[in-house]
Amino acid sequence: MKLNADLAQRITAAVDAQFDAQIEFTKALVRLPSLREREASAQDFMAEAFRERSLEIDRWKIDVEELKRHPGASPVASPYAEAFNVVGTYRADSNEGRSLILNGHIDVVPTGPEERWRTPPFQPSVREGRLYGRGAGDMKAGLAANLFAYDAVRAAGVRPKGRIHFQSVVEEECTGNGALACLLRGYTADAAIIPEPVDEHLLRANMGLLWFKASVAGDPAHASGAYSAGLNAIKRAWKIWQRLEALEAQWNADRGAHPHYADHPHPIRFNLGKIKGGEWVSSVPAECTIEVRAGLYPEWTIERGKAEIEAAIAEVAAEDAHLPAPAICYHGFHNGGYVLEPGSPAELALQAAHEAACGETLQALASTASTDARILGVFGKIPSLVYGPTCVGAHGIDEYVELESVRRITKTIALFIADWCGGDSSGAS
Amino acid sequence: MKLNADLAQRITAAVDAQFDAQIEFTKALVRLPSLREREASAQDFMAEAFRERSLEIDRWKIDVEELKRHPGASPVASPYAEAFNVVGTYRADSNEGRSLILNGHIDVVPTGPEERWRTPPFQPSVREGRLYGRGAGDMKAGLAANLFAYDAVRAAGVRPKGRIHFQSVVEEECTGNGALACLLRGYTADAAIIPEPVDEHLLRANMGLLWFKASVAGDPAHASGAYSAGLNAIKRAWKIWQRLEALEAQWNADRGAHPHYADHPHPIRFNLGKIKGGEWVSSVPAECTIEVRAGLYPEWTIERGKAEIEAAIAEVAAEDAHLPAPAICYHGFHNGGYVLEPGSPAELALQAAHEAACGETLQALASTASTDARILGVFGKIPSLVYGPTCVGAHGIDEYVELESVRRITKTIALFIADWCGGDSSGAS
Repeated sequence: MKLNADLAQRITAAVDAQFDAQIEFTKALVRLPSLREREASAQDFMAEAFRERSLEIDRWKIDVEELKRHPGASPVASPYAEAFNVVGTYRADSNEGRSLILNGHIDVVPTGPEERWRTPPFQPSVREGRLYGRGAGDMKAGLAANLFAYDAVRAAGVRPKGRIHFQSVVEEECTGNGALACLLRGYTADAAIIPEPVDEHLLRANMGLLWFKASVAGDPAHASGAYSAGLNAIKRAWKIWQRLEALEAQWNADRGAHPHYADHPHPIRFNLGKIKGGEWVSSVPAECTIEVRAGLYPEWTIERGKAEIEAAIAEVAAEDAHLPAPAICYHGFHNGGYVLEPGSPAELALQAAHEAACGETLQALASTASTDARILGVFGKIPSLVYGPTCVGAHGIDEYVELESVRRITKTIALFIADWCGGDSSGAS
Repeated sequence: MKLNADLAQRITAAVDAQFDAQIEFTKALVRLPSLREREASAQDFMAEAFRERSLEIDRWKIDVEELKRHPGASPVASPYAEAFNVVGTYRADSNEGRSLILNGHIDVVPTGPEERWRTPPFQPSVREGRLYGRGAGDMKAGLAANLFAYDAVRAAGVRPKGRIHFQSVVEEECTGNGALACLLRGYTADAAIIPEPVDEHLLRANMGLLWFKASVAGDPAHASGAYSAGLNAIKRAWKIWQRLEALEAQWNADRGAHPHYADHPHPIRFNLGKIKGGEWVSSVPAECTIEVRAGLYPEWTIERGKAEIEAAIAEVAAEDAHLPAPAICYHGFHNGGYVLEPGSPAELALQAAHEAACGETLQALASTASTDARILGVFGKIPSLVYGPTCVGAHGIDEYVELESVRRITKTIALFIADWCGGDSSGAS
């Protein structure tokens, strides 16, 4: 890191000075329940935060037709009426410095049964140094960290010399189409940071991801004839799920061939995320639909993953060939994986910033999840650094983010901004 | 049977003479999709048929509060806004003859995927002597047979000397509350016939029946953590279902203790009729609900069945005692079974009528299903004879009723009416 120690100290002190405000901002963001199809009010909040910082504001609805023409698009399976992206842009007086994207996603996943939360999921609560709430860690703390890191840089008297785009995107939790829409709108930079909650690590690789729905036919009959007549579609769907679990085990057994995951105990994760079957309790069910999330090794093509999944399903279906074959529909994530090639200038800069902020060497990890880094990195050719705080219970009950972790990664990002983009420092704070 | 051969011949000839009209009537009834919550138009059709025959008409909405006070009521889990019963009553000039209830249910179960039917389920179609359509056999052919049997008796010049109630009831497919509402309204008689599709047999016994819903909690987590974190509610629900299947096997193994079912290969049937779980494909599901139909031996109390079911579920739930215990809800059939004591005058009369109409001895059967006979028989103390035509595919795809079978059982019912109720015959047809 080329920053002098004094400037670095002023920047990290500025993070500390405004950290209470940062927590309040994050809490305000958690209060806005930006579930799928309800993102707009939280995006308005982000736009207002950009406006307060005199950033250029670009707020637009995702253009589904334009998306569909891009090979990186995932199928659009739910309405996009509320699917607005917001980008706030800082323009440097000169463009001498390197440009930067600070990206985060505004969408959160459903809460599960609210009565099982100790405090309601959209009423943020701070207890024992943790901020609780749906999306607190995944990833509203990250969206806030991006902005407050910048504030700290400015408070330390630095005017960055490179362009900075603050991106608040939708659709990270189901497709990646929000980040893709930013690319299609022309946003690019020399590096990107995405403060997903990765426990203060740097993401070296993430999985490809498929969502699919298999609609399985049964042979309906009167329940009093069950076992003599009919074939229960739910039981047939369960056999298919068991075959898919066997496929998952087989893929995991092959992990030695995948350098980033060779030592991982369980890199590939299939999740039976939804099921729905039957229409009358006293009828043997005619139909059952299962919805599955499947990880794919980053070296694989999506087509390979799909072919193996479809073959596994067909194998089970063939046992009851007199029934309609399962209909398979891809209705969300349809993405390859991502690998951050080591040694880029951006990575080196982040390592240095992390070390300065946290006093430790930055460790890399290969994730069993997926992130928008694949969109920016693979299709935008932007070195994309996923680096963020410690969060427990993402997608679960009582999700929380560790506030001291948020403070540390905010300092790292702030130091990174000042170093990467460069900047005139007046010395005034 | 006390009818003379000439009169019997005139009655069965009258059934033949009007059989085309009976088929048309049945088809018209099949065209009315009397699914749960949509029964009213079919009941209007029945009321009109009663009116054309100058029967007294009683059409009323089921009184849920009144029902709830009766021990034979099942829980009301769906709206009763369309839940009308219709009864048409024939009053004899004298009341010298025995009275009779001719009962049938108007409700039909869902169709399953309509595109899998050879002809649409609510567009009745006659092919190769079969009438196809949802409800054709279960049991609109029976409702029609009741009326056309009476028509044949009248056409043969007989005026029955006993009161006859034609009951078209709702809720047979989920609770039995429709038949119970008829009892509560005061309808009773010396015997009842219910022409459910029992393959020209007499029902000797039917099962008790429970519907229950188990709402199973999981421990939600990010799908990328599945297998390391979280516990999938769908998988936990499946374990509960497997435990229930073991309970079913155990009950079946005990069949030797139950005289009517000792020789039955599989008397107890549990049906996993519905399942619904998960809310986000990339989250380990927090909740899954299964809905099950369970048969009970007629000798058992409902409480015994419930206690064993609840214990089985609790046993599996205890493996994950840190999670909320499954919530169990009884949301439909909540009924003991029914046994028709052999040798009643009504049974003897039916045997004679069947033999006269079909040329064969009437065989009895013990059913794995449930019928409204338990309501009329157990709570109304009315000897209730379930006797009806051959139907294939009840609750399935391409349900049909055999038309020659319908013709035969219509003749039997007509002969029964004339014999049971007695009547003056002018000899004119």
